[in-house]
Amino acid sequence: MSQPSKETITQGFQELQSEIIAGLEALDGKSTFSTDAWERPGGGGGTARVILEGNVIEKGGVNFSAVHGALPQMMQQSLKTSSEAVFYATGVSIVLHPKSPMVPIIHMNVRYFEMEDGGSTTHWFGGGIDLTPHYIHPELAKQFHLRLKSTCDGFDKAFYPKFKTWADDYFYIPHRKETRGIGGIFYDHLSASEKHSKSELFDFGLAVGKTFVPAYSQQVAATKDLPFSEVQQSWQRLRRGRYVEFNLVNDRGTKSGLQTDGRTESILMSLPPLAGWEYSHEPKPGSAEAETQALLRKGIDWI
Amino acid sequence: MSQPSKETITQGFQELQSEIIAGLEALDGKSTFSTDAWERPGGGGGTARVILEGNVIEKGGVNFSAVHGALPQMMQQSLKTSSEAVFYATGVSIVLHPKSPMVPIIHMNVRYFEMEDGGSTTHWFGGGIDLTPHYIHPELAKQFHLRLKSTCDGFDKAFYPKFKTWADDYFYIPHRKETRGIGGIFYDHLSASEKHSKSELFDFGLAVGKTFVPAYSQQVAATKDLPFSEVQQSWQRLRRGRYVEFNLVNDRGTKSGLQTDGRTESILMSLPPLAGWEYSHEPKPGSAEAETQALLRKGIDWI
Repeated sequence: MSQPSKETITQGFQELQSEIIAGLEALDGKSTFSTDAWERPGGGGGTARVILEGNVIEKGGVNFSAVHGALPQMMQQSLKTSSEAVFYATGVSIVLHPKSPMVPIIHMNVRYFEMEDGGSTTHWFGGGIDLTPHYIHPELAKQFHLRLKSTCDGFDKAFYPKFKTWADDYFYIPHRKETRGIGGIFYDHLSASEKHSKSELFDFGLAVGKTFVPAYSQQVAATKDLPFSEVQQSWQRLRRGRYVEFNLVNDRGTKSGLQTDGRTESILMSLPPLAGWEYSHEPKPGSAEAETQALLRKGIDWI
Repeated sequence: MSQPSKETITQGFQELQSEIIAGLEALDGKSTFSTDAWERPGGGGGTARVILEGNVIEKGGVNFSAVHGALPQMMQQSLKTSSEAVFYATGVSIVLHPKSPMVPIIHMNVRYFEMEDGGSTTHWFGGGIDLTPHYIHPELAKQFHLRLKSTCDGFDKAFYPKFKTWADDYFYIPHRKETRGIGGIFYDHLSASEKHSKSELFDFGLAVGKTFVPAYSQQVAATKDLPFSEVQQSWQRLRRGRYVEFNLVNDRGTKSGLQTDGRTESILMSLPPLAGWEYSHEPKPGSAEAETQALLRKGIDWI
């Protein structure tokens, strides 16, 4: 069977972006996505698509990019390549900040990376979906994880447990000793092997992408009509503050993007419209906020 | 002449903290500072003093710390010491976020570091003051820099030009291609030499500390009664967002503090109560916001 070329993968991701946008516009029911095409000086470019002030989504982005060129020096070092190495990278990246504090923040990314150095080519896939509820409901967390498990199980029963643990470890804020949210799945450096062809790994990335809209729609449907007031909005601002901390201090993608002179506005599209910090804030014992705080830890089996 | 011991320096910084707090409570006229003493598991501790919801200051901290123990592994590597090295570090650190967008954010730090390794002791001083106006007024920027120059000139005519340039370089946000504000002075690794004794360098640090309240009072007096509305507040939230970006992405003190398991609440006291991000925000040409944006660059001679 023929294996997908970078052109095929790029086109697949581009179609995925359009499909997700159509799904999210239907879900939101008010705002539509603006389009911002950009070019990378070193080669390639992307399309940033942003939604603002919707019924459900206060600020969100669904970004596609396909960039290539000489491998940045910082990556030459970490990947131990020659200075002649060239790369090709394409992917779709999403962060949605909902208006209501009762609705969770969601993040998704699927990506493909290819590198040529001294005549040899390597490639790998990465990606994942994870959820950051301002208020954690264990039953909804279970529904979310069940969907991810079902997508994973369609390819390999070993994927979900491995990628769930990987997400727990990745979406962790050491200086707060807490996870960003309820996790999800995260995977990286998945290359074609005896077990999974390149074609299968590509299909898996697309399947993760196609899980996004139904998984989020389920969360939104269950939470969007819940009442809230200033108490919940104030907590939302603090949780968004933690989201900012993770993205700027801990997220490898954000850090390497900024360091390799990526497109700042696309990278920082993930930051919330409004975030807050209070000195030494502690939720009241027994409150819904304290219940959520107690669930921000690794290793919970939500299913 | 006898040179100041670490005990003398620690006491001097502790007194400086009290003096500055007295000055800021008088300046604010409404809120007073709470006190939060903490201990460091590895040795030493500090006193975090926080002011909230004042007439002038919305959120601010004036922190003192004196910590010691085995040199953290990460610092052993960067300072190229043995694994036996021990350190002593003391300092005062301030960030004030004013309520009004017309009043500038201010930051100050003075610090002393001492290290013993294999029988030899090294020490150095660091510090500085810098200003981040949400709206830059060149005349007020000049007044601010004149005060810093005057403090510097009392010790060495070479200090101001050197430390002003250092601040321009340090308080720079590469991914935004802009400075954090109008700079000020920044210095580090100042050790006793033929030119300046340890005693002189300590006195210089204290003099920088004593410049803080009058310098900020002058800025506050000139701006606190200026009218503002939602337009200015929205711009303030965006400028605070940039402040968050600098502190979490670029500030070496914040990064090393979080990485060496410092006290998170004291380190992140610098973050604003509320900050905002808008996708691809550009101030309107000719607006006061655009004027400020154009002045966020290195190398401006404010005097």
